Order: sequence, then C-alpha cells, then structure tokens
Amino acid sequence: MNRYEKGKEVLESIQERPLEEIFEVIDDIAPDMSRFVVEFPYYEIYTRKEVDLKTRELCTVAALTVLGTIPQLKDHINAALNVGNSTTEIVEIIMQMSAYAGFPKAINGIVAAKEVFAERDLLSD
Amino acid sequence: MNRYEKGKEVLESIQERPLEEIFEVIDDIAPDMSRFVVEFPYYEIYTRKEVDLKTRELCTVAALTVLGTIPQLKDHINAALNVGNSTTEIVEIIMQMSAYAGFPKAINGIVAAKEVFAERDLLSD
Amino acid sequence: MNRYEKGKEVLESIQERPLEEIFEVIDDIAPDMSRFVVEFPYYEIYTRKEVDLKTRELCTVAALTVLGTIPQLKDHINAALNVGNSTTEIVEIIMQMSAYAGFPKAINGIVAAKEVFAERDLLSD
Amino acid sequence: MNRYEKGKEVLESIQERPLEEIFEVIDDIAPDMSRFVVEFPYYEIYTRKEVDLKTRELCTVAALTVLGTIPQLKDHINAALNVGNSTTEIVEIIMQMSAYAGFPKAINGIVAAKEVFAERDLLSD
Amino acid sequence: MNRYEKGKEVLESIQERPLEEIFEVIDDIAPDMSRFVVEFPYYEIYTRKEVDLKTRELCTVAALTVLGTIPQLKDHINAALNVGNSTTEIVEIIMQMSAYAGFPKAINGIVAAKEVFAERDLLSD
Amino acid sequence: MNRYEKGKEVLESIQERPLEEIFEVIDDIAPDMSRFVVEFPYYEIYTRKEVDLKTRELCTVAALTVLGTIPQLKDHINAALNVGNSTTEIVEIIMQMSAYAGFPKAINGIVAAKEVFAERDLLSD
Repeated sequence: MNRYEKGKEVLESIQERPLEEIFEVIDDIAPDMSRFVVEFPYYEIYTRKEVDLKTRELCTVAALTVLGTIPQLKDHINAALNVGNSTTEIVEIIMQMSAYAGFPKAINGIVAAKEVFAERDLLSD
Repeated sequence: MNRYEKGKEVLESIQERPLEEIFEVIDDIAPDMSRFVVEFPYYEIYTRKEVDLKTRELCTVAALTVLGTIPQLKDHINAALNVGNSTTEIVEIIMQMSAYAGFPKAINGIVAAKEVFAERDLLSD
Repeated sequence: MNRYEKGKEVLESIQERPLEEIFEVIDDIAPDMSRFVVEFPYYEIYTRKEVDLKTRELCTVAALTVLGTIPQLKDHINAALNVGNSTTEIVEIIMQMSAYAGFPKAINGIVAAKEVFAERDLLSD
Repeated sequence: MNRYEKGKEVLESIQERPLEEIFEVIDDIAPDMSRFVVEFPYYEIYTRKEVDLKTRELCTVAALTVLGTIPQLKDHINAALNVGNSTTEIVEIIMQMSAYAGFPKAINGIVAAKEVFAERDLLSD
Repeated sequence: MNRYEKGKEVLESIQERPLEEIFEVIDDIAPDMSRFVVEFPYYEIYTRKEVDLKTRELCTVAALTVLGTIPQLKDHINAALNVGNSTTEIVEIIMQMSAYAGFPKAINGIVAAKEVFAERDLLSD
Repeated sequence: MNRYEKGKEVLESIQERPLEEIFEVIDDIAPDMSRFVVEFPYYEIYTRKEVDLKTRELCTVAALTVLGTIPQLKDHINAALNVGNSTTEIVEIIMQMSAYAGFPKAINGIVAAKEVFAERDLLSD
C-alpha cells in the first residue's frame, strides 16, 4: 500500500466511516485537503507505535476542546469511542480542560460529547 | 485531611517539589491563586480515579502545547515524566499537536520539552 | 451553608435562573462539571468583596468577547444586566474589545448582545 | 470627502453591498461600531497603496481562517473574490493555513469557502 | 485639538509617559501604527463617557490576560493603576480570569502584575 | 528527487539557510518533526503553483502575527524578504492585522519585524 492507501485504511478504521463520506463537504473544491489529512495525521502520526491509539485520541479530544472547533471535536469524540475509550474517560478529560482553558471551552466540550453520545445511544436513562 | 491538605499532597507528589517553591513567584500578591490551584485541579480533578494520572498528564501536555503557555507546559512535561510517561511518549503527543494546532505551536512545545529533558539529564549523547 | 449551597445561591442570584435549568444540558453526563462551576467561580470568586459584582461581570463580558464562546457570553451579558449594568455599558465594553482582539470578535459580541437585549425586550424601537 | 465618506466608498466597493445592509444587524445598538469599521480598516488601511487590495484580502482570509470567526471569514472570501482573487487562490491560502493553525481551522475555512462559492454559483458541476 | 492631538493627550494621561517613549520601538519602521493606536483606541474609545476609565482599564486587563500578550498586559496594569485601580482590584480581576481562560493564563497574568508592582515599589515587605 | 529531498530544497531556497541549522534545536529529540515540516508544508504546499511564493509568505506572516508565535514569525519575515517582499509590504500586512486580531498582536509583530530588519541591516538611519 502507498501512503494514501495506508492512511485511508487507518482513518476509516478509526473513524468507522468511509473517507468519501467524511470529506464530501470539501472534496469538490479542495480535493488535496482530504489527501493531506489522510497522508499527514493518519499515515504519518496515527500509525506510530510509541503511543497507543486510545491515548492519542484522548489527547486529541483534549486539544480540540481547547481549540473549540466543535465539528472536529465531535468527530474525535466518536473516534475516541471507536478505539476503546469509555464515555466516562472522555467526559473526564473534557472536564479536566476547565483548569487549563477555562469553563466555557470545557462546557461546550461536554455539550458536544452529549450530542455524540446521544447519536450513538450511549446516554443512560 | 481537608481539601487543601489533600490537594497539596497530590500536587507535591505529581510535581515532586514543595508547594511553596512552585508558587513563591505569586504567593505574596495573590495567595488565594495558589490555593485555587491546589483545591481545584489537584484536589478535585487529579484525585479522580476514572482516568489514571499518566494519561491525564499527557492530555495536559497536549492542551498546554495548543495554548502555548510555555512555563506551565514545562511544569507539566516534568509532571508527565514524574507520573510515568517516557520522553518518547511526551515528544509523540507534542508532535501530534502539529495536526491540530499547527507546526509553530508543536515546534515550540518540542523546544520546551528539550529544555526540561536537559535539566533532568535525559538527553542522550 | 456549605460551599455548594452558598455558590448555588450566588449563581442563581446573578443568573436569575434555577441552577437545574442552567445546567440541564450537561448534568446527566457530567454532574460534577456544574458542581465545579458552582463551587469554584461562584463560591470562590464572585463572593469576594474586593471588586463589586457589577464590575466583575463587565470584565467577564470582556473576556468572553475575546474568547468568542458565544453561549457563555450571552449568559454573562444577561448576568451583567442582572447585577446592574446598563445595555450601554455592556455595548461599550464589547466595542472596546475591537482594539484588543480585533473587529470580528467585537462584532460577534455585539450580535450576541443584541440577541440578549431582544429576548429581554430592551431594544428601543 | 471626509474620513467616513471615503471609508464607506472603499468598503462598499470591496464588499459590493451597501453599508446599511452589512451592518444592519448591529447598527441599532452600536452605531459607532460600524463607523469604527468604516473609518479604521477601510479608510485607514485598505486605501494604502503599499500592498494591492487583491493581496490584502488574501491575507485577511488567512487571518480569519486562523481566528475561526466564520461570519467575517465568509464576508472576506466574498471580498477577496470581488477584488480579483480566483476561487483557486482562496482555497490554496486556506489550505496553507493547515500548516500554521492546524487542520480543524483549515477544514472549517474550506467549508465556509464552499458556502460562499455556492451562493455565487461558482461551484462547477 | 485634532484627533491625533486629543488622542495623544488621553494616551499620555493614562499611561503617564510621553508617546515617543512608548512607541520608540516601532516608530521608525511603522510610524502609522502608533498613529492608529492614538487615533483609534485612545481618541475614539477611551474618551467616551459611557464607562469610566477605571472600569475600562480593568476590562482591558481582563482581555489582555486572556490574550496572553504580556508586554501590553504590563502597560495596561500600569494604566489601570494610573486611573485609580488598586493593586488588589487588579489582582482580583486577573484571578477571576482563571475561570474563563484557565489557570496558566491567570498565573502568567499575576506574574506580570507582580513585575509591574515591583517596578512601582508597590510590593509590601 | 523524493519527497524529502524536494521539500528540503524548497525549504532551504526559501529560508536561505541549511536545514540542519534551522532544526538543530529539535532534531535530537524529535527528528521526525523536521521531516514533517519538510515533507508537508514545504513539499506539499509551497511547491504548488496556484499562488506565488511571494504572496504565500505574506499570508503566512499574517497568520503568524495572529497566532503570536514569535520565533516562527521571525523565520517567515525572513522568508518573506527572501522571496521578494519589501520591508514595506511586510510592515503593511502586519499593521493590517490590528483590525482583525487587535493592536497587541500587531505591535508584537512589528517589534519582531524590526528585529529581523536590524539583523539584515535593513533599517534606514
């Protein structure tokens, strides 16, 4: 497999969705943008063995909570679940961000998590 | 132990330094500031068992790389080492941030890590 | 009253809404998150007498305009009104932020203020 | 022409819309805010001859992609087109931001660009 | 007095330093930059009577703590003192930012405040 | 030439320094970090013909002024000069950022530019 094929495999395995669906919103005007995402973070970073995927995705959830980019945060809350994190672990790390980036970013992260959990039927009654 | 005493114990165990040394720079003008740090992140968050300290500190390193607050990033690179992360794991997570917050923040994070590793004699020849 | 009860009283007095309504969106997945907000900013900070609530809330409006976290900005524009700020004072401070954080953040802050003022019937004809 | 009249002329020429329409959302509560925008960026900056408008608007698109303020980013993607940039040039600069501010900001910028291009019927089949 | 002269008078009255000293670092390569600062924030904003200077400067301290731009934060901690804020009020507002922008930004703000207070001999023994 | 060799050639041509010197500060602990920079922004982005290098580097200067990452801003002010921008054009774009990201970021950008210009003997007497 070349860089693109390997990255695509990793991305689809983590996101549990076909690449075309994930990037359909940008592929017609910026096809290289999705290639960059496939070949850089997914091929170059998420294949590295020094840190396991479960921990990597929790760190990404932390980063995206701080950045406040909600669509990508929701994608990676999904990804974090897909690679073995529990809803509890995800909520814990988002709450932890309140100390480093303040309560507004942490609360908006919790709201995003709740939306993802609801879509996956993971909210208890 | 009360909230403050328990938080102080956790903070000193993670940071491996006495509280007075960590906060001497702010304690004379803002004594409650260090109390807030002791009682909120250290007493309320770092004592929670849902995520282990090793993972929590890696997520904090991710967050502080994104925020670009270098003094606190260096403190938490130290803390991440103290609770069992290797230099390799820390470098990996900082590099991973290049995909989410760009190369400048990631490179500045690596420079901070190198300074901490040098102070602890962890740079190989 | 303990920390939680006192903080809840302060929060509800400032926000003029019951706690349960404010945090219903996050309470089922992250109940400790709302406890943190009650016990840290509201119990520890907003009870301090060194700065009056009217000034504190204007400073919070300034900070949230800079951060660009719109839901919390709207909450605190409401809070700023509740503790005695006029619509004029709030608009002035948001406009002032254009010099420090640029026009986009300031304009988005004005749009948020207008939504809050409209909900409270504070827009003149 | 005085400062305001000249700035208004420049703004309307770049944005290709009447000033009243652009600022109707804020003018009733913060009339001086739109005057500031007219007189500072448009009168003081966009009239300067040292850099042409085409390059200035691309740099503004870069900045707003990094800031993540989507309504203003969309306004300036429109403006960038109005002063002679192609859709390709705009997409290129937004993609370039992935290296400096990370993929989430760049992807959100591409989504904004696509919305603007669609409104202007610039998407090829 | 014209715009520039009035803005210069306000700036020098708030900063308690001659304009030339404040901007000597940038005036040779960007003389219009300091004119913009004089004519926009100082002439247009700080002259407005709707909010008093004491409150405006506290809000600016809040904003600059969140932004983390230390040289300007120190300038405005000085300005905040010059227009009647006490060291206690300034420390309070910086501490308050820990809830909205996290502890790292608030701690770095306290460190900046301590440096300013030391330069002005305002630290008690 | 492979990806790395081509990217290295582009980077060294833009930065006018050998790669080893640019990254010596991080290469011993994070060798893949510099490879990522070579292969992603320099191989994938700066080789694209849709926008010329002169404009790309001005947009990068805009972005880094907004981000406030001074070491990288200075590198790219150098790069912007190397690919044909004048000191005037660079100063103009940094000043323009005051409207989008506020005066503190723009002033810190001007200070960075002045340091670079001084190192290159580009300050007029």
